[in-house]
Amino acid sequence: MFVSKNLDINQKGNLTIGGVDTLELAKKYSTPLYVMDEELIRENCRLFKSSIEKYYNGNGLVCYASKAFSCKQIYRIAKDEGIGVDVVSIGELYTAMQVEFPADKICYHGNNKTAEEITLALNYGVEKIIADNITELELINNIALDLGVTAKVLLRLTPGIDAHTHDFIATGKIDSKFGMAIELGDAMEGIKKALELKNIKLMGVHCHIGSQIFDITPFEHAADVMLEFIARVKNELGYEIEILNLGGGFGIKYTQSDDPKAYDEYMGRVSEVVKKKSDKLNLKLPFIIIEPGRSIVGPAGITLYTIGNVKDIKNIRKYISVDGGMTDNIRYALYESEYDFVIANKASLPKVDTVTVAGRCCESGDLLGKDVKLQSAEAGDILAVCATGAYNYSMSNNYNRVRTPAVVMVSNKGSYIAVKGQTLEDLVRNDI
Amino acid sequence: MFVSKNLDINQKGNLTIGGVDTLELAKKYSTPLYVMDEELIRENCRLFKSSIEKYYNGNGLVCYASKAFSCKQIYRIAKDEGIGVDVVSIGELYTAMQVEFPADKICYHGNNKTAEEITLALNYGVEKIIADNITELELINNIALDLGVTAKVLLRLTPGIDAHTHDFIATGKIDSKFGMAIELGDAMEGIKKALELKNIKLMGVHCHIGSQIFDITPFEHAADVMLEFIARVKNELGYEIEILNLGGGFGIKYTQSDDPKAYDEYMGRVSEVVKKKSDKLNLKLPFIIIEPGRSIVGPAGITLYTIGNVKDIKNIRKYISVDGGMTDNIRYALYESEYDFVIANKASLPKVDTVTVAGRCCESGDLLGKDVKLQSAEAGDILAVCATGAYNYSMSNNYNRVRTPAVVMVSNKGSYIAVKGQTLEDLVRNDI
Repeated sequence: MFVSKNLDINQKGNLTIGGVDTLELAKKYSTPLYVMDEELIRENCRLFKSSIEKYYNGNGLVCYASKAFSCKQIYRIAKDEGIGVDVVSIGELYTAMQVEFPADKICYHGNNKTAEEITLALNYGVEKIIADNITELELINNIALDLGVTAKVLLRLTPGIDAHTHDFIATGKIDSKFGMAIELGDAMEGIKKALELKNIKLMGVHCHIGSQIFDITPFEHAADVMLEFIARVKNELGYEIEILNLGGGFGIKYTQSDDPKAYDEYMGRVSEVVKKKSDKLNLKLPFIIIEPGRSIVGPAGITLYTIGNVKDIKNIRKYISVDGGMTDNIRYALYESEYDFVIANKASLPKVDTVTVAGRCCESGDLLGKDVKLQSAEAGDILAVCATGAYNYSMSNNYNRVRTPAVVMVSNKGSYIAVKGQTLEDLVRNDI
Repeated sequence: MFVSKNLDINQKGNLTIGGVDTLELAKKYSTPLYVMDEELIRENCRLFKSSIEKYYNGNGLVCYASKAFSCKQIYRIAKDEGIGVDVVSIGELYTAMQVEFPADKICYHGNNKTAEEITLALNYGVEKIIADNITELELINNIALDLGVTAKVLLRLTPGIDAHTHDFIATGKIDSKFGMAIELGDAMEGIKKALELKNIKLMGVHCHIGSQIFDITPFEHAADVMLEFIARVKNELGYEIEILNLGGGFGIKYTQSDDPKAYDEYMGRVSEVVKKKSDKLNLKLPFIIIEPGRSIVGPAGITLYTIGNVKDIKNIRKYISVDGGMTDNIRYALYESEYDFVIANKASLPKVDTVTVAGRCCESGDLLGKDVKLQSAEAGDILAVCATGAYNYSMSNNYNRVRTPAVVMVSNKGSYIAVKGQTLEDLVRNDI
């Protein structure tokens, strides 16, 4: 009935998340409000982790891609579950450091790392810096030399696979700001450079083929292409790469028409490719890293809003306005992303209406959904937008000087604040 | 040569803004960096103000639409120049209050104001609350009643004009989350309700026909339609509306192909329409409000970045990566907005290259421009993006936990910080 398994309806007819009444959450913490289900986040971490144990003998690491949702508490949860994290900036690394996240389980990504970032990563002992290009490799080497350390590095490669068109070696996908293309020889140049630089230790290679992918085949193709490349490196340079980081991109259910595969199926099929191909190419089985972000936190979150005015423009469109919008969820404005909507206090009623959900910003493009099905709405109703755990809080902004809402987590022990909502004082804190 | 008149080249061949060397700014404050030219902001304020004096006998008010760029310093400048401001949230009002902005010169906008916001606006004595709809009118009335005050209100109407297609009474434009449509009768209903509510004093009507408009004709049409409506209200209800707020939407020069009209021409032509039409309809000349935002601050700003790697993907595309991106300028990702780019330390050299400017975020859509003309780029160059004074800082975000850059102002007296750059501590301040 709902897109996420942790959503349900209680005896009052109210929407619940992780068993907690969303009306009570809205009342206790006010709206707009991000709500995340800690138990589902943990369950998802364990699903990925156990799939590596089951299909790949545990010879790998799940690194949560924290750009999907970054705050101290999510790093605590990842640490507690024994998985790694992927960070993409000094800000994410700094946040992870606040909870003493183990440096050997951090992948540091980005297409343009600054000297400040690389220095902090090396000082903290991050063991998996994913270098995007040769300029960056040289920068890492120079900083490592200055610091008197050896930087453990993976190289980001573009295997030329488009996960959405199913083109194998699609030229289009090497048109990217990220990484070094295998087919153009750039990847091999990068490997040679990494092996040549004295303060770099080449640990592995990385690829990432897209986002919100439902089909497993392109992941199999990517594994195949990467192993072919690892074999070429071994044959041509006599160096065997130990780590294969296959990135993330696993799709989640945003709307009823989305049909993501079980994580188990992904890992089962990809492991099979890696094992067979390694055997065929006479390679040692690589240590595997996967980087799920959205699929760990996305389904675990919802956003609660209070509905203000309902504007029925005769024969044109019915708008309902909420007390948030593109400031807390910019994904419709950016990508026309679709979501499932529920009136939390009318969750058991049928969706008899078609409405456009407008945000409160002074911008006509500030919508959360266009012509979506919904229960009949009135001012004061609480609207829930489902599966907002990823790329909502993390992309929040203060456009119109709107304050960022709090993030509340629900768990078996009740609800608690993971990130405080911004105050008016926060908005002017840096103003002179 | 440059899109904004305050940009030039000094003897070193470096780009200057308001006469200040951008290389020195980058060195002093580091990159990424927003730079705003206080003198040009003031000049633009005066241009709008004097055009009302010149063509409309000073019988009006310029209200700077602060959603374009909001911080304490911009409200200080507006106050100092004797113009008003338009705010759209409690956050913007709160910021304006910090510099004791005169309440009688504040327009309060928004399609979904909360009780908290209306209460603060009334307590502060805001004299121009623009009510979007009847639900909101009733809410304002109830709060005013509780506070024992009379709320001075304007009504937001949709005149049915599409500023870009030039359709007069285009049905499409009443498909909006904002305001009450004149042609459907909703506007007249709103007027009746406002006149009926005891704690509301109806002061005027408001319309806003779009953004980044170059043609003056739709503004003339809008004035015409609004005055026809004011006359209908007078004739049918015997109530003469005093204030006509014509909104904003004046275009600026982002690229060499943009050709905005002089502000003077706008005010000259629109004043003519208002005077002739008022005379014809036997109306008193209304007090006019205009709400320029982008056109006051947009041309006054630039953003400075340091170029990291330059990635030439053979026969495909050349990417240059900078140390900012969609976190400080999300307009390309949102609207594919175009900008003019200059390498600040090579400003006098010809633009011989075509490059795609990539941001540093872990998202392939994080670009600032695609296939733009630029001087030949190398790592370490300082890239200036021109005309970024509007909707850049105001839409900034911490995606990837990237820190928001500082806003530096240049003036006749030198440079100073208007908004401090975020620190790493700022990023985790609200994390539990």
